[in-house]
Amino acid sequence: MWIQKSLQLRARPRGFHLITSEVVKQLPEIAELSTGIIQLFIQHTSASLSLNENADPTVREDFENLFNRIVPDGDALYRHRDEGDDDLPAHIKCSMLGSSLSLPITRGQIALGTWQGIYLGEHRNHGGPRRLIATLFGE
Amino acid sequence: MWIQKSLQLRARPRGFHLITSEVVKQLPEIAELSTGIIQLFIQHTSASLSLNENADPTVREDFENLFNRIVPDGDALYRHRDEGDDDLPAHIKCSMLGSSLSLPITRGQIALGTWQGIYLGEHRNHGGPRRLIATLFGE
Amino acid sequence: MWIQKSLQLRARPRGFHLITSEVVKQLPEIAELSTGIIQLFIQHTSASLSLNENADPTVREDFENLFNRIVPDGDALYRHRDEGDDDLPAHIKCSMLGSSLSLPITRGQIALGTWQGIYLGEHRNHGGPRRLIATLFGE
Repeated sequence: MWIQKSLQLRARPRGFHLITSEVVKQLPEIAELSTGIIQLFIQHTSASLSLNENADPTVREDFENLFNRIVPDGDALYRHRDEGDDDLPAHIKCSMLGSSLSLPITRGQIALGTWQGIYLGEHRNHGGPRRLIATLFGE
Repeated sequence: MWIQKSLQLRARPRGFHLITSEVVKQLPEIAELSTGIIQLFIQHTSASLSLNENADPTVREDFENLFNRIVPDGDALYRHRDEGDDDLPAHIKCSMLGSSLSLPITRGQIALGTWQGIYLGEHRNHGGPRRLIATLFGE
Repeated sequence: MWIQKSLQLRARPRGFHLITSEVVKQLPEIAELSTGIIQLFIQHTSASLSLNENADPTVREDFENLFNRIVPDGDALYRHRDEGDDDLPAHIKCSMLGSSLSLPITRGQIALGTWQGIYLGEHRNHGGPRRLIATLFGE
């Protein structure tokens, strides 16, 4: 069984955001699979998808602060700077964290661990709405 | 054909560990697929899965040392520190390195390159046993 | 439907290279899938696959420069240095960026966003040709 849907995520401020329930709510088809995979793919080069701690909001703040230190805005090293100080760093963070997630489905649910949630990394100051492709397959 | 199994990895000290043979030994079903994918997914937010050099143990030591420099323990930047100096750094390393691997299966074997092995990144000082979900599919 | 092919990428200089059209040209089978996944897997531990901006070549130069700053060549920290100053850094960059990409296929095309292209990260000074396994599946 194959299901593919395009999802739109509302615009969010720069930072890391927990989007598990927003994604799951738009994909009731997950319940139809007893064993399978859900693949989430973000069609942008300055926002990322990753998995991390789903409870304490300071984890997401620490992520934003640490990645900003590793990949500073407006560094003199960068040549690509047409769209502002946050442009090239957003691309780098996107490649470090990744553009897609493949997650197992078990008995109609995404088999996340107790503390795992889906993070949208919004790496632009004004990124706007973001588009995902969700592909579900299995039996 | 779909096969899904839960695997438990024994507790290991902090650092990077080669787990290819421990994983393969628990999955004799790989031999049943002529073409397919094996997806390995770790259900934790402070341990990671990645692929790297499978021969020289100093590579794994260098990984531990370099990631500790990029994401130092107990940095004053972090707000999430309830579980100790290694807590937030473990979350960051997990997202940098990733929580899953998708690997091609060819004629009953995982099609790893000559030098590729599966690394468990144990990023906590005392992480305990770790749980993986292995999903195999193909024909 | 399952298709698996081994692709060889010609040797390239150290740095980030856009390989989307070289890969797609070797995989006319993509057009046969209305919904599916293409998985690209690189069988090496010192080159990476990632997705990023497909237009401005300075983005790829900035990637090379920034990753060289985060993971410097010949750092005194490294113990694994038999193959030269670029050896261990290449392994680290490979694990940070990843060895595989899973991309959705929609109506016979890879569903990349407007600005997304496939990057080969060649992290060795003289890496030589690189081998990929492409696995396509879907309906």
